[in-house]
Amino acid sequence: MPRLNQNEDSLVQRIARVFAGEPADSHSTLKGQVGDDAALFAPKRGYETILTCDWFLEGTHFLRDKHPADAVGWKCLARAVSDIAAMGGQPRCFLLSLALPQACTGHWLDEFLRGLRRAARKFSCFLAGGDTTQRKEILINVMVVGEVRAGQAVLRSGAKPGDVIFVSGRLGEAELGLRLLRSANAAANKRIAAVKKHLYPEPRVALGMWLAGECLANAMMDLSDGLSSDLPRLCAASGVGARIEEAKLPIVPTAANKRTERFDGVQLALDGGDDYELLFAVPRGKVARIPRSFRGLLLTKIGEITRGRALLRKDKNNSKHELVAGGWDPFRKKS
Amino acid sequence: MPRLNQNEDSLVQRIARVFAGEPADSHSTLKGQVGDDAALFAPKRGYETILTCDWFLEGTHFLRDKHPADAVGWKCLARAVSDIAAMGGQPRCFLLSLALPQACTGHWLDEFLRGLRRAARKFSCFLAGGDTTQRKEILINVMVVGEVRAGQAVLRSGAKPGDVIFVSGRLGEAELGLRLLRSANAAANKRIAAVKKHLYPEPRVALGMWLAGECLANAMMDLSDGLSSDLPRLCAASGVGARIEEAKLPIVPTAANKRTERFDGVQLALDGGDDYELLFAVPRGKVARIPRSFRGLLLTKIGEITRGRALLRKDKNNSKHELVAGGWDPFRKKS
Repeated sequence: MPRLNQNEDSLVQRIARVFAGEPADSHSTLKGQVGDDAALFAPKRGYETILTCDWFLEGTHFLRDKHPADAVGWKCLARAVSDIAAMGGQPRCFLLSLALPQACTGHWLDEFLRGLRRAARKFSCFLAGGDTTQRKEILINVMVVGEVRAGQAVLRSGAKPGDVIFVSGRLGEAELGLRLLRSANAAANKRIAAVKKHLYPEPRVALGMWLAGECLANAMMDLSDGLSSDLPRLCAASGVGARIEEAKLPIVPTAANKRTERFDGVQLALDGGDDYELLFAVPRGKVARIPRSFRGLLLTKIGEITRGRALLRKDKNNSKHELVAGGWDPFRKKS
Repeated sequence: MPRLNQNEDSLVQRIARVFAGEPADSHSTLKGQVGDDAALFAPKRGYETILTCDWFLEGTHFLRDKHPADAVGWKCLARAVSDIAAMGGQPRCFLLSLALPQACTGHWLDEFLRGLRRAARKFSCFLAGGDTTQRKEILINVMVVGEVRAGQAVLRSGAKPGDVIFVSGRLGEAELGLRLLRSANAAANKRIAAVKKHLYPEPRVALGMWLAGECLANAMMDLSDGLSSDLPRLCAASGVGARIEEAKLPIVPTAANKRTERFDGVQLALDGGDDYELLFAVPRGKVARIPRSFRGLLLTKIGEITRGRALLRKDKNNSKHELVAGGWDPFRKKS
């Protein structure tokens, strides 16, 4: 039930209460308290700090009637943690900026905080502070602080011609989940793997840390908007081109299931967003050190980095096409 | 003129271009680049990191037709930097989360970035990254990273009975500026001091650093929502009460001017938000070390910290009243 007369201080206290007793409280590197002007964070010696922030907005990134509140809580943190993973870093703490309608300060908030706390525990990333206000729509911004050993961060800009392009997991699965969710009349069926991946994505922190620690990747990023939009960003930052092969893409086998057979697995893999898998470029001499799977997570060669700036996609018949960005872009989709 | 076909990548590049060549670029402690997954920040040895974030939302915190775009740019950063000042810290860098209507991606964005860059230079706080998306209304979230020598941060929770309560500057001036702005039919007259303070607040970074460095304050916070709302927060965090005297408040002399004579200076000082002055508690033995002004900024004793939890206000006739929170609270004002 919505609690009326909720004011900002009691909202902050409620959030603090949900996170009280979490490991962060006893952690020597986090001082101050939720509700102070700012959070204090003692960085480890020899480490660099990684900073990232991510919007998660009702109507733009999620729908109040389709996305369970606990999934909103989980995903807003998972998305931002994925940016830390993409640098090879370890998440440490986060700030939560939350704007809520009065009607969401009761049950919805409880469920949201439950999902958020579950994610915080899973990713070892703890609430350090934030800002709250009232608003007609639910607005969320999550800022995550991570750490990486000095000099080990993997940027987007280091890819070199000849590097082999890898991706983790299956591409397009979260997009498939979103489509199933949108077409469903009933509440989300979280047991369907694709729906689960869309609602509760798992940032690839362990993989990113391993690749960075072993110096196996020249460049890396996470796939948040879709391969066809994100690969060009990595290539632009590195001043290189790329050639990928459709036949090698780790697609979701849509044809095997009546519920999904109308979707094209290759198109989902190219243009589907929200997978939060890692895309990374490995120098040829180190390719043998990349296993087929890392702790149960598939790792797949999908192409290579090339000289020049061309971005090519080889289809199943070996015909070459330009890779056209068809992923998520808020300024394209809505204009 | 609004630029159509603006997409997210070109927006990020435009923001990066405005900030290119800023000191941060040549600063050894900031690596990576705007547009990468996350920003890299090398903390100084022996310092703690301070983290804060602040909403700045159209309709809630500013009005598109009343607030010039460059003031929105200035103020969104100044507000967050003020939280760093309130801990006694020095701002270092910030992340900008920006959601814009398509119509604001032209002239409005240029002006916004101009104000933001001016503030960034003034506060020595540089753009390290962020996130952009499209939205019907302008949504801003700014996350600032600062630093303070380990152990020197001043929290809200350290006030002790007998401490003398000080504030910097004049209270209620920004609220007066807001009222003048709202009642004006024409564009904002930035030459009026109160309007200028509302539009372009100056966080008290130098004062906060001095107080922290000299260990002069037991507790400190910035006045963002108004004295009657913020002082109770400091007292609650410290487990103490307070008694302030109306006659001592550094109010704005509203009666002296025909434009402002209808406003009550004391009420403005108690309940007016957005001043971003510092509120701090000084142990009695150190009061003599606090000058009447610090680099031209007025410092005023307004009362003292007391045992128990009572919050009292003595009026001009020496009658005591309970101090009632009448400052800004998004959940009270709008519900």
